[in-house]
Amino acid sequence: MCRDKAVIAVRRHNANFCKGHFLDHIRRQVERTIEEYKMFGPDERLVLGVSGGKDSLALWDILTGLGYQVDGIYLHLGIGDYSSASLTLSQSFANTRGLSLEVVDLPIAYGFAVPEAAAASQRTPCSACGLSKRYILNRVAGERGYDVLVMGHNLDDEAATLFSNVLGWNVEYLGRQHPVLPSTEDGLCRKVKPLIRVAERETAAYAVLTGIEYEVDECPMAAGNTVNRYKEYLNRLEEQSPGIKASFLFGFLERGSPLFEMSDDVELRICSNCGQPTTGEVCAFCRLQKVTISHKQGR
Amino acid sequence: MCRDKAVIAVRRHNANFCKGHFLDHIRRQVERTIEEYKMFGPDERLVLGVSGGKDSLALWDILTGLGYQVDGIYLHLGIGDYSSASLTLSQSFANTRGLSLEVVDLPIAYGFAVPEAAAASQRTPCSACGLSKRYILNRVAGERGYDVLVMGHNLDDEAATLFSNVLGWNVEYLGRQHPVLPSTEDGLCRKVKPLIRVAERETAAYAVLTGIEYEVDECPMAAGNTVNRYKEYLNRLEEQSPGIKASFLFGFLERGSPLFEMSDDVELRICSNCGQPTTGEVCAFCRLQKVTISHKQGR
Repeated sequence: MCRDKAVIAVRRHNANFCKGHFLDHIRRQVERTIEEYKMFGPDERLVLGVSGGKDSLALWDILTGLGYQVDGIYLHLGIGDYSSASLTLSQSFANTRGLSLEVVDLPIAYGFAVPEAAAASQRTPCSACGLSKRYILNRVAGERGYDVLVMGHNLDDEAATLFSNVLGWNVEYLGRQHPVLPSTEDGLCRKVKPLIRVAERETAAYAVLTGIEYEVDECPMAAGNTVNRYKEYLNRLEEQSPGIKASFLFGFLERGSPLFEMSDDVELRICSNCGQPTTGEVCAFCRLQKVTISHKQGR
Repeated sequence: MCRDKAVIAVRRHNANFCKGHFLDHIRRQVERTIEEYKMFGPDERLVLGVSGGKDSLALWDILTGLGYQVDGIYLHLGIGDYSSASLTLSQSFANTRGLSLEVVDLPIAYGFAVPEAAAASQRTPCSACGLSKRYILNRVAGERGYDVLVMGHNLDDEAATLFSNVLGWNVEYLGRQHPVLPSTEDGLCRKVKPLIRVAERETAAYAVLTGIEYEVDECPMAAGNTVNRYKEYLNRLEEQSPGIKASFLFGFLERGSPLFEMSDDVELRICSNCGQPTTGEVCAFCRLQKVTISHKQGR
């Protein structure tokens, strides 16, 4: 495209990018995704789930650069030094740029940390963590009056989740795997994923090239989890067939997803304990909280 | 199950089998598949697509053992020594057992061999071969008045095809990937796959243990093809999670397939050249034949 030195090759676009063109390209991919899926307009109140990793911080930078005002929520999961380091990096990012970051401390606000929930329940750490994140981010976004909860899932995240859902033909999850989940009257905040056209290595490159300091270490509890194994498989497929990850995800969104959406007619009700939306009597988060706190108290 | 020496471990069934119990197990798997999908009854006329490989010969042996009378069609594809060797093995299998095998010679009957079709068209050898097989087996089965065309696709074949169709979200193919395809008035013969519960290594073990001599070499034109690569990926997944191949395929058949079938409303018509069913004006086989013969004649 230009005569500047190439800093990254993106095989699925059959292109080598210099720094400037690469950063532009990533921003345009995000812009295009927001428009294509009608994720939000300029006057809506946006809040981003911030983890301190490359994806959420890069996305915060990109959205701010595109002119959106976006606040952040950081959820402290109580995973030792990993959580403390991610919090420091998130706060430093926000402070430097004059952005607003609310910190929710899972142990303080809800009485337990992710490792305790995993130990007390039948869940893996990633499952207990995912459940807690989805619950708390949705709840806080709603309570603070935000219109949209923005998440930093990238192409690799979404393709690996899709891979997992397809291997098990989990038709309910497939019906809900969409870049935009609309808000519902009973308390689900609209949730959007503007980074799904950007691969993991590209968000890392974006963060490095723009000087964002992010948590480089992987969560110590996630080592060897299923989604990470599936990411490796997909990377091997991608090596042989550049672009297959993107065509897998976007082929699903175009041609597969409409078929699964039709079969997704789950009725939501209100959790009798916390008032948040659930499919049962008591929501999965309240049940996790209860079993974990009982377990901690040795009962 | 018994005190006899184990000859094979089948991890997805969490079982080690002695020879006798293993052979019984495989036969029961086939019997169960025929019943579950209502593939055919005892009075229908069955014809099996015979390649000389382990799958079709093992299936012929199993179906005969279950009391079905099954004729065979061997399609000579014109792939040098490989085709000659497979034909000899198929004929010897049929002769020893007093079974009827019709041989259709692609070069003699249709004027071209698979390698020539691949060279003349934009297709890979496997694609030209698959198209020719589907066309000719269906046509001959119909012309000879058979009720059912039986195919030897095993669990690995079907899972790899499904994997490929899902990676590309080929919803039309997904709508038609079923163990039983019904006959249609316009000339499609009912097609069934009774071996889909049996893995590739199990049909090989069955053939070895029953003394079936089969073509051990892989087709020289298939080396490195996509389906074989996907089989390897699935084998790696299976190693980590025994049973995932079967749950992927049968989860699809239970929960995914009905959604895709609904969207499959392709209208069939009659090929203006050969009278066989097609979605276009001239069927894909007639087009392949024409382009290959023109290419051979140097036009």
